[in-house]
Amino acid sequence: MRSICGVEGVTAAGMKEGRYGLALVAAGGTAAAVFTGNRVKAAPLVLMEERIARGELDGILVNSGCANAFTGERGLADAAAMAEIGAACLGTDPERVGVASTGIIGRYLDLALIRRQAGELAPRLRHDPAAEAEVARAIMTTDLVEKHALVQGDGFSVGGVCKGSGMIAPNMGTLVALLYTDAEVPAGELREGLRAATRRTFNQVVVDGDTSTNDIAFLTATGVAGKVRAPAFRRALEECARSLAIQVARDGEGATKLIEVVVRGARTERGASDMARTIVGSPLLKTAVYGEDPNWGRVLAAAGRAGVEFDPDRVSLSIGTGELRTPLVENGGIVVDLARAKQAMRGKEVRFELDLREGDREARAWGCDLTEKYVEINGRYTT
Amino acid sequence: MRSICGVEGVTAAGMKEGRYGLALVAAGGTAAAVFTGNRVKAAPLVLMEERIARGELDGILVNSGCANAFTGERGLADAAAMAEIGAACLGTDPERVGVASTGIIGRYLDLALIRRQAGELAPRLRHDPAAEAEVARAIMTTDLVEKHALVQGDGFSVGGVCKGSGMIAPNMGTLVALLYTDAEVPAGELREGLRAATRRTFNQVVVDGDTSTNDIAFLTATGVAGKVRAPAFRRALEECARSLAIQVARDGEGATKLIEVVVRGARTERGASDMARTIVGSPLLKTAVYGEDPNWGRVLAAAGRAGVEFDPDRVSLSIGTGELRTPLVENGGIVVDLARAKQAMRGKEVRFELDLREGDREARAWGCDLTEKYVEINGRYTT
Repeated sequence: MRSICGVEGVTAAGMKEGRYGLALVAAGGTAAAVFTGNRVKAAPLVLMEERIARGELDGILVNSGCANAFTGERGLADAAAMAEIGAACLGTDPERVGVASTGIIGRYLDLALIRRQAGELAPRLRHDPAAEAEVARAIMTTDLVEKHALVQGDGFSVGGVCKGSGMIAPNMGTLVALLYTDAEVPAGELREGLRAATRRTFNQVVVDGDTSTNDIAFLTATGVAGKVRAPAFRRALEECARSLAIQVARDGEGATKLIEVVVRGARTERGASDMARTIVGSPLLKTAVYGEDPNWGRVLAAAGRAGVEFDPDRVSLSIGTGELRTPLVENGGIVVDLARAKQAMRGKEVRFELDLREGDREARAWGCDLTEKYVEINGRYTT
Repeated sequence: MRSICGVEGVTAAGMKEGRYGLALVAAGGTAAAVFTGNRVKAAPLVLMEERIARGELDGILVNSGCANAFTGERGLADAAAMAEIGAACLGTDPERVGVASTGIIGRYLDLALIRRQAGELAPRLRHDPAAEAEVARAIMTTDLVEKHALVQGDGFSVGGVCKGSGMIAPNMGTLVALLYTDAEVPAGELREGLRAATRRTFNQVVVDGDTSTNDIAFLTATGVAGKVRAPAFRRALEECARSLAIQVARDGEGATKLIEVVVRGARTERGASDMARTIVGSPLLKTAVYGEDPNWGRVLAAAGRAGVEFDPDRVSLSIGTGELRTPLVENGGIVVDLARAKQAMRGKEVRFELDLREGDREARAWGCDLTEKYVEINGRYTT
């Protein structure tokens, strides 16, 4: 198993017909969700913000191809109808079914299609590797690869699938994530844990700086594995979410390289996060990484516009990891060896570490390079 | 005349050798400047922030090819030395010489080169069309075209040249702008007028969302034409700055189309500005415009993340100008005719108008499409 079917109490099925996919996951237990920061929220999110408050779900139905966003009253009714369809498949109450949509904005759901697809999926719900792969594929839009993560804790598991490769930005760096654990966790703790993990992982992924109207992450705890220690659960959850977040960055539309930015020595974690995210999202840095061009001034220029106080004359900056790690700036002085710096950019992963030397907080952010392919993919998505 | 030499009391000369250009402009009078919002400020800006406070200049010396940014104490000394060089050419005090630099970050100025070039320019200072063209060309980096503007007021002129095509973002949408007027304007009014014009023009241009360390705009009033009415002066100044800002957007790195976004019906001008800028800067919208793909949902998704309260179910959105103008959304309802919308995207200029129907304030922002060429240009700038 690679993800959600590594968690006891989860059964799943998914399918894709052209650009229209549907995923059905059955797993009863306590549940929580986090949502996009965009003021234009898709209809299923409006519905879920209200319904998730009870803290329990029996399953989740997610469609791809149509976002059901900017669809007004009809969209809300369609989202509720989608929950009804899920409830009928799972033999439960529609209030206990999570729904999410991803795809093109400003189009109405094809409920007849969703009803037919759901009818085909219900008898195929099962707990095996093929089932979790079907779910991961069903929710993909411009994603090139399935995204799975499974973390084994001490006597429990946390597993998840997600989709996302464009419109990935501050405030929920993924369109849809479905996370499960077999630990027994009260709904309040699930919610807090999911918020904390999201802040450090999904929210720190930037592909293009655009924030989706449809970003949503669900977390359901089946409780099959019994009670666990809260810190151990939070660690496993964050690790699972981080793995998915990095997979999203790596699969950024048109990406050839993963970029990781570490900001250390900040006065606050918030400041470090903001700065790491601003740097990793800089189009100029992203194109420089694509061109393997050690134009490190762009890192500092981006740091300077992050809204965080610091003294540029004190910072240290390095590029690369392991043996290829090489300093660019030390204590505010330029020490770069351009040939070595270029060498450090050759691989599939490029890491920048910036030390502000102002405090002891740090944060990370992930992104990808900006390539001609991103332009090609996004210049021709609807038509 | 197309720009600064259309203003009485201005003489100019410029040259370019490979990527290293130098522009010298002589014009004595009251003066003001506005600066980048980036916390990493290039050395010449640090120097100018202090020196411009006296409100008078006799001339300006600008180099291209090296930004003199992130160069510490040595950079500050180099900027001061550059003012000395300008002063020697103009026969004035270094405190009365404006300096600016644009180009690569993290490299030291070649003062010997600047000294030699300035020595060649000083005897060539003159008041003619070729001189203003030399200045416009001398300050270009990745710009493809010279940027000139000249506005005739009632008995006075405002003229300017500028450079900028990448790293153009909120908080000073241009790297270097040199503005002149022959009106007699006190330094305080010059400063206020320049700030207001900048807020509505240069600050509303987004090419890639990156904010430069070197953005600076100077405004000098020679006073040759005598006193003028303040509102008339401000209108002419804003018109001149807007023309330059639009030229910057149109010449965005790799751009094939100018994008104009108008946000109307906002409660505050600030809210309208923020939203217009967020929309025009959206990479997803920029790529859609490039592909002539009427994916208008991206306009609303970007509006939703601008940090401005509004009700998506009330807005109206249209695309195009004149006969090609076609509605996409009316009072929150989707009314788009995709074929007509696509038609409206065919030209060299694409305009979106969003009416929030919340108040009576409006603002504009300008940008350009995002193309493979942007990636190519920025992937290979230093090396």
